[in-house]
Amino acid sequence: MREVSIIGIGITKFGELWDKSLRQLGLETGLAAISDAGIKSKDIDALYIGNMAAGSTLQQEHVSALMADYCGLTNHNVPATRVEAASASGGLAIRQAYMAIAGGFIDIAVVGGAEKMTDVSDSESSYTVSMGSDEQWESKAGATFASLHAMMTQSHIEQYGTTREEMSAVSVKNHYHASMNPIAQFPFTVSAEAVSNSGLVSSPLRMLDCAPNSDGAAAVILCATEKAKKYGKKSIKIIGSGQASDTLSLHHRQHLNQMPAIRVAAKRAFKSCGKKVSDLDLIEVHDNFTISEIIALEEIGIFRRGKAAAKILEGETKLGGKIPTNTSGGLKARGHAPGATGIAQVVEVVQQLRGDAGDRQVKDAKIGMVENHGGTAATAVIHILESE
Amino acid sequence: MREVSIIGIGITKFGELWDKSLRQLGLETGLAAISDAGIKSKDIDALYIGNMAAGSTLQQEHVSALMADYCGLTNHNVPATRVEAASASGGLAIRQAYMAIAGGFIDIAVVGGAEKMTDVSDSESSYTVSMGSDEQWESKAGATFASLHAMMTQSHIEQYGTTREEMSAVSVKNHYHASMNPIAQFPFTVSAEAVSNSGLVSSPLRMLDCAPNSDGAAAVILCATEKAKKYGKKSIKIIGSGQASDTLSLHHRQHLNQMPAIRVAAKRAFKSCGKKVSDLDLIEVHDNFTISEIIALEEIGIFRRGKAAAKILEGETKLGGKIPTNTSGGLKARGHAPGATGIAQVVEVVQQLRGDAGDRQVKDAKIGMVENHGGTAATAVIHILESE
Repeated sequence: MREVSIIGIGITKFGELWDKSLRQLGLETGLAAISDAGIKSKDIDALYIGNMAAGSTLQQEHVSALMADYCGLTNHNVPATRVEAASASGGLAIRQAYMAIAGGFIDIAVVGGAEKMTDVSDSESSYTVSMGSDEQWESKAGATFASLHAMMTQSHIEQYGTTREEMSAVSVKNHYHASMNPIAQFPFTVSAEAVSNSGLVSSPLRMLDCAPNSDGAAAVILCATEKAKKYGKKSIKIIGSGQASDTLSLHHRQHLNQMPAIRVAAKRAFKSCGKKVSDLDLIEVHDNFTISEIIALEEIGIFRRGKAAAKILEGETKLGGKIPTNTSGGLKARGHAPGATGIAQVVEVVQQLRGDAGDRQVKDAKIGMVENHGGTAATAVIHILESE
Repeated sequence: MREVSIIGIGITKFGELWDKSLRQLGLETGLAAISDAGIKSKDIDALYIGNMAAGSTLQQEHVSALMADYCGLTNHNVPATRVEAASASGGLAIRQAYMAIAGGFIDIAVVGGAEKMTDVSDSESSYTVSMGSDEQWESKAGATFASLHAMMTQSHIEQYGTTREEMSAVSVKNHYHASMNPIAQFPFTVSAEAVSNSGLVSSPLRMLDCAPNSDGAAAVILCATEKAKKYGKKSIKIIGSGQASDTLSLHHRQHLNQMPAIRVAAKRAFKSCGKKVSDLDLIEVHDNFTISEIIALEEIGIFRRGKAAAKILEGETKLGGKIPTNTSGGLKARGHAPGATGIAQVVEVVQQLRGDAGDRQVKDAKIGMVENHGGTAATAVIHILESE
């Protein structure tokens, strides 16, 4: 199998982008990534799109062809494929492109993710997110996405004694990181008190435990490493990739406070490149709720089970700490546009490994991990990136 | 790259299946394919799902994890990926699995397609289908999926003199084939007069020019050819694969009566295996409307441009003719369940190449093609299959 590198990145601001359509966001970020890579339209062999919900929110399926069309790629009939796994759509799109290049089918792929969540009402966008859980047993029965994660949180609290203060520390840290990220939806700090006293959404989760439903887009250019040299930018290798599934509904699982798909995907990703936890210099995890960041760090093996929350409070995952986590601001503060999120996470790690992360740069970052999941982690996708 | 074979197939009846849910259809067809292949659950390395519209029709995204869950594949956390390209979702899911196996990532994949189109009203399911066209310039502007194809038909009539009688011959032939297919939604013949006098849907297209919006599911098991021998069934090789895109909206195209994505995908599929049109013993094409079958046969090169309709009327595409086309009954008469259709087409060709097609068997069939497209052919996926 061939090695694969990332040679270009593009990202829009995340937020309530009422003045931009899905196709505009896709075009903007696609062109930014193409320009960053220094490639031409005719160099592109394939397009992969991560999108969760354009069918529900915009009555637009077939987003792959839409994006190929608007990015001017249909003049040479570029194969365009949309991949969906709820909020893991972006990471999964990268994995498909990675396999197509590593397998020798193509040399260069654009992988883009885009989502418009604010063209519908707040209740509709919240319901849209819950379509990533089980319609029959969860969403139609009244379990919101927040309430499912509230149950996971409560179970974690009961088994490990996780505290309100520890959970708030996740949000505080991510807002602090976002305050240095120009594309973040919420580029400002929040105090632990503000998080702990924010409105109750679904006990024990409060408003500032929850990521927003954002508009946004991100794109990366993947290229066979052997051909990456002729393009200008410092390229970043994808050295590991892993994917795993779990039951869609929570009640089918053995433990409410674990996310086994993340554990297995991480194991597969580590195995694919022979690396281990201690090799990682930074990590982006899928913090759609504060509990998700805590459990993800435990499942990947960064901290022992039940110990992550305390370590976060101690500052080990903060910029300058042992393992900086979500230097982008994470889903919580950079924003969460489902189909774009997994790709935005990779954009952050590429910026870090290039040394281009400005005030939020992790010193001497060489290897970074991206953990992206869908639903209550019924799909998990993990990539490990290394600077050359 | 490794060779890839199909070692198992499963399919449900197509129709208005009000007593079965999406997950039941998926489970039923998945188990049928697994049983047909003689493999065990633990042999499965990955699951790929083709589904167009569960988000819109059932408020259920993340269908990949749902199917992994209900087929019992989450006990070893099988990677599960949903692929969507409107009605080409099934064919595209097969292509992703094909690349993952050929590239050496996995040995065995289940590829399943399922769709429930009749749990919503007829107008809702029709609108859902139109989500495969351009929301901004077509569907929201009032162009139905039928009216877009009506424009293509009118243009074909004006340029080539295509007649009502010739168009009706497509429908008559496909119903005749379906009359021998036990899983067909409409397993009965219709007369040319019945087609030509059926109710006008969008001039010049009449009711019996149009495929139904069906419920249904189909699945195939793909396996690295080098490992296929140890399983019982006669395996069928996927020798060629091609994919192409085109502009999503019709008005962006140069010709209303052509579908260039099919032409390019066919060229790529032929090139990938060194075969040519004259090597084909049979073909399944995407006849969502009678005009689509006519144009598809022209784009693939089975007949010269403007000549296909007359050849169909002469019987060249009928069972026993020069190139039997849509022996399953096609989308028109077997039924059209968008995410399942591309896989159901492959199931038909596998049955033919195995010699298991019963009354509708094409004599000495060795090589068959499957053409599956989405929207007004903004995505086209083509596979070429050969019996070993």
